[in-house]
Amino acid sequence: MQPMQHQMMGYDRAITMFSPDGRLLQVEYAKKTVSLGNTAIGMVCKDGVLLVTDKRIMDKLVVPEAIEKIWQVDEHVMATAAGILSDARILVERAQEKAAGYRITYDSPIDTLTIVKDLCNIAQYCTQSGGLRPFGVSMLIAGADADGKKLFVTDPTGLYNQWKAVVIGEGEEDIQQILHKEYKEDITVEQGLKIATSSLKKFLGENFAADRVDAAVIMDGTKSVERVSKERIAKLLK
Amino acid sequence: MQPMQHQMMGYDRAITMFSPDGRLLQVEYAKKTVSLGNTAIGMVCKDGVLLVTDKRIMDKLVVPEAIEKIWQVDEHVMATAAGILSDARILVERAQEKAAGYRITYDSPIDTLTIVKDLCNIAQYCTQSGGLRPFGVSMLIAGADADGKKLFVTDPTGLYNQWKAVVIGEGEEDIQQILHKEYKEDITVEQGLKIATSSLKKFLGENFAADRVDAAVIMDGTKSVERVSKERIAKLLK
Amino acid sequence: MQPMQHQMMGYDRAITMFSPDGRLLQVEYAKKTVSLGNTAIGMVCKDGVLLVTDKRIMDKLVVPEAIEKIWQVDEHVMATAAGILSDARILVERAQEKAAGYRITYDSPIDTLTIVKDLCNIAQYCTQSGGLRPFGVSMLIAGADADGKKLFVTDPTGLYNQWKAVVIGEGEEDIQQILHKEYKEDITVEQGLKIATSSLKKFLGENFAADRVDAAVIMDGTKSVERVSKERIAKLLK
Amino acid sequence: MQPMQHQMMGYDRAITMFSPDGRLLQVEYAKKTVSLGNTAIGMVCKDGVLLVTDKRIMDKLVVPEAIEKIWQVDEHVMATAAGILSDARILVERAQEKAAGYRITYDSPIDTLTIVKDLCNIAQYCTQSGGLRPFGVSMLIAGADADGKKLFVTDPTGLYNQWKAVVIGEGEEDIQQILHKEYKEDITVEQGLKIATSSLKKFLGENFAADRVDAAVIMDGTKSVERVSKERIAKLLK
Amino acid sequence: MQPMQHQMMGYDRAITMFSPDGRLLQVEYAKKTVSLGNTAIGMVCKDGVLLVTDKRIMDKLVVPEAIEKIWQVDEHVMATAAGILSDARILVERAQEKAAGYRITYDSPIDTLTIVKDLCNIAQYCTQSGGLRPFGVSMLIAGADADGKKLFVTDPTGLYNQWKAVVIGEGEEDIQQILHKEYKEDITVEQGLKIATSSLKKFLGENFAADRVDAAVIMDGTKSVERVSKERIAKLLK
Amino acid sequence: MQPMQHQMMGYDRAITMFSPDGRLLQVEYAKKTVSLGNTAIGMVCKDGVLLVTDKRIMDKLVVPEAIEKIWQVDEHVMATAAGILSDARILVERAQEKAAGYRITYDSPIDTLTIVKDLCNIAQYCTQSGGLRPFGVSMLIAGADADGKKLFVTDPTGLYNQWKAVVIGEGEEDIQQILHKEYKEDITVEQGLKIATSSLKKFLGENFAADRVDAAVIMDGTKSVERVSKERIAKLLK
Amino acid sequence: MQPMQHQMMGYDRAITMFSPDGRLLQVEYAKKTVSLGNTAIGMVCKDGVLLVTDKRIMDKLVVPEAIEKIWQVDEHVMATAAGILSDARILVERAQEKAAGYRITYDSPIDTLTIVKDLCNIAQYCTQSGGLRPFGVSMLIAGADADGKKLFVTDPTGLYNQWKAVVIGEGEEDIQQILHKEYKEDITVEQGLKIATSSLKKFLGENFAADRVDAAVIMDGTKSVERVSKERIAKLLK
Repeated sequence: MQPMQHQMMGYDRAITMFSPDGRLLQVEYAKKTVSLGNTAIGMVCKDGVLLVTDKRIMDKLVVPEAIEKIWQVDEHVMATAAGILSDARILVERAQEKAAGYRITYDSPIDTLTIVKDLCNIAQYCTQSGGLRPFGVSMLIAGADADGKKLFVTDPTGLYNQWKAVVIGEGEEDIQQILHKEYKEDITVEQGLKIATSSLKKFLGENFAADRVDAAVIMDGTKSVERVSKERIAKLLK
Repeated sequence: MQPMQHQMMGYDRAITMFSPDGRLLQVEYAKKTVSLGNTAIGMVCKDGVLLVTDKRIMDKLVVPEAIEKIWQVDEHVMATAAGILSDARILVERAQEKAAGYRITYDSPIDTLTIVKDLCNIAQYCTQSGGLRPFGVSMLIAGADADGKKLFVTDPTGLYNQWKAVVIGEGEEDIQQILHKEYKEDITVEQGLKIATSSLKKFLGENFAADRVDAAVIMDGTKSVERVSKERIAKLLK
Repeated sequence: MQPMQHQMMGYDRAITMFSPDGRLLQVEYAKKTVSLGNTAIGMVCKDGVLLVTDKRIMDKLVVPEAIEKIWQVDEHVMATAAGILSDARILVERAQEKAAGYRITYDSPIDTLTIVKDLCNIAQYCTQSGGLRPFGVSMLIAGADADGKKLFVTDPTGLYNQWKAVVIGEGEEDIQQILHKEYKEDITVEQGLKIATSSLKKFLGENFAADRVDAAVIMDGTKSVERVSKERIAKLLK
Repeated sequence: MQPMQHQMMGYDRAITMFSPDGRLLQVEYAKKTVSLGNTAIGMVCKDGVLLVTDKRIMDKLVVPEAIEKIWQVDEHVMATAAGILSDARILVERAQEKAAGYRITYDSPIDTLTIVKDLCNIAQYCTQSGGLRPFGVSMLIAGADADGKKLFVTDPTGLYNQWKAVVIGEGEEDIQQILHKEYKEDITVEQGLKIATSSLKKFLGENFAADRVDAAVIMDGTKSVERVSKERIAKLLK
Repeated sequence: MQPMQHQMMGYDRAITMFSPDGRLLQVEYAKKTVSLGNTAIGMVCKDGVLLVTDKRIMDKLVVPEAIEKIWQVDEHVMATAAGILSDARILVERAQEKAAGYRITYDSPIDTLTIVKDLCNIAQYCTQSGGLRPFGVSMLIAGADADGKKLFVTDPTGLYNQWKAVVIGEGEEDIQQILHKEYKEDITVEQGLKIATSSLKKFLGENFAADRVDAAVIMDGTKSVERVSKERIAKLLK
Repeated sequence: MQPMQHQMMGYDRAITMFSPDGRLLQVEYAKKTVSLGNTAIGMVCKDGVLLVTDKRIMDKLVVPEAIEKIWQVDEHVMATAAGILSDARILVERAQEKAAGYRITYDSPIDTLTIVKDLCNIAQYCTQSGGLRPFGVSMLIAGADADGKKLFVTDPTGLYNQWKAVVIGEGEEDIQQILHKEYKEDITVEQGLKIATSSLKKFLGENFAADRVDAAVIMDGTKSVERVSKERIAKLLK
Repeated sequence: MQPMQHQMMGYDRAITMFSPDGRLLQVEYAKKTVSLGNTAIGMVCKDGVLLVTDKRIMDKLVVPEAIEKIWQVDEHVMATAAGILSDARILVERAQEKAAGYRITYDSPIDTLTIVKDLCNIAQYCTQSGGLRPFGVSMLIAGADADGKKLFVTDPTGLYNQWKAVVIGEGEEDIQQILHKEYKEDITVEQGLKIATSSLKKFLGENFAADRVDAAVIMDGTKSVERVSKERIAKLLK
């Protein structure tokens, strides 16, 4: 049975329904939204973990510094997203509250996986309950826990995976191939940033500009989120 | 797959649904409402920030002074909108309450971005929950914070961007081109008002009248919203 | 895209939905109801503000004195309406409660605009939330505030405008033209009543009868709602 | 646009929707129910107010005395109805409770209009909120207040009018013509009962029987609801 | 307009909707259910009131004594039903609770009509509120009040009538004709039981068996519900 | 009107609706589910009451002892079911709680009929309220009360009957015929078990295995539920 | 009647509805989801109980150790699943809470069956209540209770069965045949792990990798969940 038929017969026009071949079509369409979203790359490196994302500045009168596509969740956790960014903001605000609450209650930093599972539970809920559409966003969440660096990707179904290096959003197939070739577990954050920004440049072609890149890292030493400056990005790309 | 097909198949007749290509059509239609709304222009200038909007007075027996299309949110924050203006009023009243509550709680002025994020969260909610349509309005919010002047545009999705100079509503494509040519970061508020009112005049053609223009500024010195008088607007247009 | 097409495709058969061209059709149909309602005229005059409306008495056995189409909201505020009059009654009762509550709380009369905004917020709510149809009525609200006389018109969208002289309901286009010609800001209430009743007589033609007219004024001196007697109306029409 | 078209396009298959020409079709159909209901007549006379209604006894084994189609709302207020009589009973029970509550709270009889407005507010609510159909009934409510006799008719929209003499239900057009010819404001209750029962007899033709008539009066002297006996009705008809 | 057309156009596929000719089709279909239900007969006689009903035993391994189709509501009130019997049970349990509550509160037996009105109010509610289907049952309720014997029939609309003798359910048209011929107000309960059981026998023909008959009476002397034994029924039928 | 037509016109695609011929189709389909369920047999015998059911073991790696298709509700009450067994489990758990609560409150065993009525009330509720499907199960409930042995069958409508001997589920027509021939009121439990297991064997043919049979009895002496061992079943079948 | 017809007529596009042949199609589609899920195998052995599942690692940059498809529910209970894994996570978290709560309340380990029944009750609820889709997952739950080792499979209907050896998900038909041939009740856990991993290898063919296998056991001695190391799995497969 082909997708087109499903559409003719309405299996994809209600959230909480299975199609005869056992698929939740609305969730699959939400994933399509993600694949059309801005590119976001993450890597776990020898000396830290990094996120690089495309700001997609569409007008030169926009204030580029004000576009924040990498959010600090807690001192040691950061996130970016591909898909509907207002959906992402809701999830990030929830993650921030959860992390802050954890610090107050336990006087210690929250585990990255705990945040990831919490966000995935909400996402799952939106695929099962009527009156709510699925979240149209995938989150890339990176953190430095007591037991090591972590990098997770969530999806609209409420699933997550832990990755060494990953890309979501526009161009994810092309750039994931670059990562397969160029990423090694023992590269430095500096090398990783170079791979990520270069692959973004390659994918965007003439639309690329250093201004469009948002990047942040958590180094092993400080275990704190640090934004990467425009200057450093420009230098990496030379 | 073409838009027409989506319409034939009903993907656009329920709020909380994705189309097979990952779009939320109801939200896109709400944006269409915005682009048909009254023109609203904002600019960050050397010595202040300004908003200029078209009052669209349709009958000479209407009291023009009573049409308020620029609302004071707090002493240092103002807003205008394009789209369904009763939707805008609801959002403005919420922003006013939030700002007032902040002053009472913290005894200091609220940050403009905090207001913007709060309005965007409500807007996002209306795109995800059943039984509510998206807000059919974009807000242009200007404020003078401790750390500088800000100008934001929100959209029906719950997204926002910070701008140096921007226009929304009817004629937004034409006027944004004018802004690209004429706006510089170091113009004065006086120059900015001139650019904004002239471009409005140019766009409206013979329908233009000084009466139709609503304008307000926040100067760096006072950090307070001041309405621009009809007389001053008339003078600018000479 | 033409209206007929919208109807074929169902964009107008649910309240909280936008059509592809960004319109809320149910709200537009509600406005149609208003334009079929009984004629209601308001004017701000030199010495007071007035409302005149058509009682539409359809049977001579109806008690004409009992038909009240101008309602006293508070001592200094009155209202009339065009459209579904049971919808109007609900709004008037709410306005009366709000005004009474204000007097008790602040020991001073409520501002007319405060009432208008409150009614418009409810109206807006009914255009955004599922399970409720929009109010099928426009209100004409006149008041004498500390800072002057006011005349407002609300619509089913939840929008309002302040007017010097205005007409809503059946014949609104014809009578508004008469107002454009005959209304001046310095006419007296007596002159205004004459203009209003004559234009109603002209529009209704042979269906007109002095009995059908309901009129009330708020004079600057007393700032109190006074009903205009049948005798006075009859005299005006001679 | 013709009714048939509306039906083809579904504007009449949901309560809270306007048709493109601004009508609420479900409410109009509810009025149709009323016009098919049993005939009910009311008159304000020189010395009292009266209600006369058709019991529509369909089987000789029904106990005619037990069919009560005129209900006592309070000592000085009575009501009858045309349409769905179980809907009417719900409204009458509410009116009875409201009247009783008023007596307890204020130690004085409730005003007839207060009851009428309360019932109309509920009726209006059922035309605006989803999940409820409009009431399929019109009420004829007669009362003797401190300031005189009153006779009201409510409709499914939540509208009401005060009448001198009126008929609702089956044959309302024919009998209203009789009332126009025969009713005078200075007739006695005795004369009024004769007009009402005769016109009912004329309309029902051979289906008529004295048994079918339910009648009650409130005389000026007692201001109390009194049922009219079968014998008195039989005598009137001779 | 013919019924078939209504069905083609969907007026009968939602509970709370009127058809263009002012009918509530779902309620009419519920009445159809009643007319297909088991036959139930009631009579008010000189010395008591009786109910006779068909147990419709479909298998000889069913325990006939356990089929109770006449329920005791209170010492002096009994009921039977035609239609969906599980619907009837819900109504009977409610009536029993209401009667018991009344005895506790007022220390006297409840009036039969009070029970009838309460059940009809619930039935009416189910015809007006969304999310509930109408009750698919008519109740036959007999009682011995202080002011005499009563026999009522309720219907799915929430209407009721008081009868001298009546039949509902399968064969109601045929048996009502028998009642018209044979019932007199001065027959004894013994004669009444004979008429009821014989007419049931006549209607059921070869399907009839004394076992299928459930009967109960309330005699004037005791004012208590008494079941009629199988032996007495058998004797009556000889 | 034929069933097929109902299906074409949608009367069977909403729970709380009647078809034009007065049927609740969703409830009828639920009964179809029951008739496809596993066979369950019950008998009241001279010295006790018994239940026998088919475990329908579909794979030899299933643990047959763990399949419990006869549930103990209380010491003296047991149940089995045909249809959706997860629906049955919900009902059994409710019955167990009700029985346990009764023992605690009254310090005596609950009457079997009280349990049956409670389950039927829930079943009825699910046929009348929107947002819930009917229970797709029939329960066979057997108990030993102070006044004798009882055997009841409930259905998805919320109806129940008391039986001497009965079968539900797959093969109910064939096996009920066997019961008609072989069941006598004075057989012993031992004889009854033989009839039940043999008729199950006959119906299942080569699919039969002693392992598939679940059986339990309540003997008059102990009034306690006892499971029948696999060995005893095997012996009966020789 | 064929499945295709059901689909044409919409019986499968609402959760809480039966098709005319008594099936709940949405639940059947959910089972289809399960059969497309990752393979999961369980076995009760002489000296313990085991679970083996396929991690389905789709990209070599995923961190295989982080994919946890066997969850520890309590010290002595573990679970795996086939189908929508975010649905499974919700159920596992509920099971973990229930088990923890039990330990706190009773100071003893919870019975495996108690957990299974609780999860099945939620699953059943989601097949009966509107506004929720069925869970698209089957759980494989293994535990070591005081009275022995247990292995259960739940399904989307809310049904469960106890098994000696079982497989769910992709390839369940092929692998169940292998189990029928190779599984014996007296094999050791070591032998069982070999059968399970080999059959997984056989089914996946060239897509197989030792990395993809997740396995855990509960040995009789410790009654504690132990994960099986990658090394041990690799050795088994030699």
